[in-house]
Amino acid sequence: MVKKIRVTIWNEFVHEKNDAAVKKVYPDGIHNAIAQGLKKEMGFIIQTATLEQPEHGLTEKVLKNTDVLFWWGHMAHGQVDDEIVKRIHQKILDGMGLVVLHSGHFSKIFRRLMGTNCSLTWRVADEREIVWNIAPSHPIAQGIAGSFELPGSEMYGERFDIPEPDQLLFVSWYEGGNVFRSGCTFKRGNGKIFYFSPGHETYPIFYDKTILRILANSARWAYSPIRLSTNDVPNQKTPLAPITKRKPI
Amino acid sequence: MVKKIRVTIWNEFVHEKNDAAVKKVYPDGIHNAIAQGLKKEMGFIIQTATLEQPEHGLTEKVLKNTDVLFWWGHMAHGQVDDEIVKRIHQKILDGMGLVVLHSGHFSKIFRRLMGTNCSLTWRVADEREIVWNIAPSHPIAQGIAGSFELPGSEMYGERFDIPEPDQLLFVSWYEGGNVFRSGCTFKRGNGKIFYFSPGHETYPIFYDKTILRILANSARWAYSPIRLSTNDVPNQKTPLAPITKRKPI
Amino acid sequence: MVKKIRVTIWNEFVHEKNDAAVKKVYPDGIHNAIAQGLKKEMGFIIQTATLEQPEHGLTEKVLKNTDVLFWWGHMAHGQVDDEIVKRIHQKILDGMGLVVLHSGHFSKIFRRLMGTNCSLTWRVADEREIVWNIAPSHPIAQGIAGSFELPGSEMYGERFDIPEPDQLLFVSWYEGGNVFRSGCTFKRGNGKIFYFSPGHETYPIFYDKTILRILANSARWAYSPIRLSTNDVPNQKTPLAPITKRKPI
Amino acid sequence: MVKKIRVTIWNEFVHEKNDAAVKKVYPDGIHNAIAQGLKKEMGFIIQTATLEQPEHGLTEKVLKNTDVLFWWGHMAHGQVDDEIVKRIHQKILDGMGLVVLHSGHFSKIFRRLMGTNCSLTWRVADEREIVWNIAPSHPIAQGIAGSFELPGSEMYGERFDIPEPDQLLFVSWYEGGNVFRSGCTFKRGNGKIFYFSPGHETYPIFYDKTILRILANSARWAYSPIRLSTNDVPNQKTPLAPITKRKPI
Repeated sequence: MVKKIRVTIWNEFVHEKNDAAVKKVYPDGIHNAIAQGLKKEMGFIIQTATLEQPEHGLTEKVLKNTDVLFWWGHMAHGQVDDEIVKRIHQKILDGMGLVVLHSGHFSKIFRRLMGTNCSLTWRVADEREIVWNIAPSHPIAQGIAGSFELPGSEMYGERFDIPEPDQLLFVSWYEGGNVFRSGCTFKRGNGKIFYFSPGHETYPIFYDKTILRILANSARWAYSPIRLSTNDVPNQKTPLAPITKRKPI
Repeated sequence: MVKKIRVTIWNEFVHEKNDAAVKKVYPDGIHNAIAQGLKKEMGFIIQTATLEQPEHGLTEKVLKNTDVLFWWGHMAHGQVDDEIVKRIHQKILDGMGLVVLHSGHFSKIFRRLMGTNCSLTWRVADEREIVWNIAPSHPIAQGIAGSFELPGSEMYGERFDIPEPDQLLFVSWYEGGNVFRSGCTFKRGNGKIFYFSPGHETYPIFYDKTILRILANSARWAYSPIRLSTNDVPNQKTPLAPITKRKPI
Repeated sequence: MVKKIRVTIWNEFVHEKNDAAVKKVYPDGIHNAIAQGLKKEMGFIIQTATLEQPEHGLTEKVLKNTDVLFWWGHMAHGQVDDEIVKRIHQKILDGMGLVVLHSGHFSKIFRRLMGTNCSLTWRVADEREIVWNIAPSHPIAQGIAGSFELPGSEMYGERFDIPEPDQLLFVSWYEGGNVFRSGCTFKRGNGKIFYFSPGHETYPIFYDKTILRILANSARWAYSPIRLSTNDVPNQKTPLAPITKRKPI
Repeated sequence: MVKKIRVTIWNEFVHEKNDAAVKKVYPDGIHNAIAQGLKKEMGFIIQTATLEQPEHGLTEKVLKNTDVLFWWGHMAHGQVDDEIVKRIHQKILDGMGLVVLHSGHFSKIFRRLMGTNCSLTWRVADEREIVWNIAPSHPIAQGIAGSFELPGSEMYGERFDIPEPDQLLFVSWYEGGNVFRSGCTFKRGNGKIFYFSPGHETYPIFYDKTILRILANSARWAYSPIRLSTNDVPNQKTPLAPITKRKPI
């Protein structure tokens, strides 16, 4: 029997309550739209968590039982508690997967993992986005065509201030003349990280079958069979090979 | 005329004052030993800074006039002020070079740039270290043989919890059976970073000509001709290509 | 039901027939030793092929039905037909996995994929090798300790003339003072490649449980669910977005 | 005194003689247009070579005196002699730089270095190309804006079948909806390689100041101070550390 992957979808869940246009697209929140979409795929155990919950819904227990964490945030990055970020960070280094969506590029956890500002250029102009699949044999690209289109999208453009990705999977073309590294993989500690840029709150992108397929694939890819702390600095007193005693220099 | 590279050598400068054995090896501090060594090479303007100075000697003005920062720290990582770390971090993302030495792997600035714990295994057993040069044509390896030896060294061993380096330059062999990725390059934002592991405080490693040659090379390599902030998130309202108006979806 | 991975183990099978010492260790050939080892793991359909067979046993049909190809060669690299190498090469670019063992570093197919000489330094001195696992959460390292030892091994040392690996998984320590990047992953086209250095013909390394576990893991890792030719250069005459007619410049 | 970099610009020089439209744009050949452009920058010693010359103008002597080789080819890739390709290949592995332009993606030498097919999609439709500079602090991008435009260009689109570049410097946007990794760096052996896609024979791209600046920068970047053969496989009989004699296993 194949192990089920335990996915926790985190959403700050603010826009959907404060902004009628967003509420219309995502009445139950972006997290629930993604959860509904992933439920159609076999092999996941899905839960959600939001900013307003105690410990933002990301208690030690929840994270201990999470194989892959999805992250959507935008206007409330600053409200995420530093202690919770630290906790998430260590869990990722120990082997928990992370999928960062859209404006999550500016979340505390993503910036902490990248070590850079994660800045970019942007434009809200209801423009076409064509996403090019440049690594078609990668697990995250399974079942995805050579390119696909989002009829209306927020532009996220270069230069995107990230370290060179381990692998670049998707590059986006925007009608207004910009390009963006829209799908990037990274590894930090024992954890696998996927950043994927489509997903502005005013567009029904998280109902799109291609997008949902990519998210499901990324959860499978980011899953690590092991958890191994990277937090120890052991003194390996006993050498594996004999050391010739010599006088101090 | 070739531009002179402005190097600032930072040292926590604690061991050398508190520990007679270290004081004997580095009576003026590790920073001054490195400074003396680099001064023999043409093309540098060198200054030093230490923990005890106001703002740890790393004021806005000092950093503004620093092309490449060297970092040696060990027992006082926790005493480095978070605000100063933030300042250094942004300067590196803007294009300042950074050379992190030995136990600096655990400094706040290096961990912040890497996004990982930077943990490793270690042993103090006065053992031989052979450093292998696996990228002989890299600028940092110019003039360095295929391998060189440090007769006594502290062991730093794998697993070293860092992101996959942009390029691996040196791999160390230890008498006691360990290996270590002892020279690694990274780029973060517009800044170039070199981590180099030799340099324990009880060994005269910073008087070694090969080591000093590597440090001089790394200063030249880490220098960036530009400073460009990566901290902006511009709204590029005017597209470069026309966007067909369409109704909101 | 999980798909079974179809593995073809290729061995030049020369030493085992000509050299009594080798014959004693691998009476049925290295290919059969590996095949026997992998058979103990679930999920593989295994066949073997050797140099002396027509088309070296690697006909179009065999390769079409191979998910992952293992390669062991040493003294007869030059006898492998260029046309067969070309065929294997295209299959790998299309998505077939490749695991290159030990002296296969100098095979035509590996050098063709790397684009470099794949040279290294070596020594036959019956010395200890300690293999360090520097990517413990990688699929190929599942179930493997932080380090393991081979009591007698041929030394393969740096500098190893390969492109920077996508990921470095294992680094070896040798008693005689050398180090080696002994486990490296690469991607070329749609194919995944793993190079693993242990496996000299005079040592019973391919009976070692740890080694066999790594080989089984690498077969699972190198498997790609798709085959997609990278050999087309399509003229995409119809653009996806309108092109404004302008006069030739 | 700074060493002058010896650049050899190779062009197949066929289109310019056979095709009136190309002849009009490059009456003296693409190689001479590039040579004229580079001559305006200090620090180069420039020569050219073409297909029709003996040994394609790339004799042992010429290559021995070449620090960086530029390569433009298109319709005559197949006419380049395999022995000359082998010679160039070894010189690059030894430390000669290589800058591959436009349709040179399909040259024997580039494919040999990459180990992949280097296929792509294309379209001749006189469309706009916007080149985005995604690594502004890289030496090749010095003096280059965040983006620049080519008013008419041949489209080269993804998927481009290359190994993951060491660093991605430029990404191109095309009016017709495509994107392309238009500036990529690679290292093979001791040689540095830059692929740059703009430069179709019917456009005056090699007179463009921005393009010429990039080419001059790339020549400086690709220059290696050393030449070191990667073709040896030395038997390092004498170990650096003592090996305990043990019986054969």
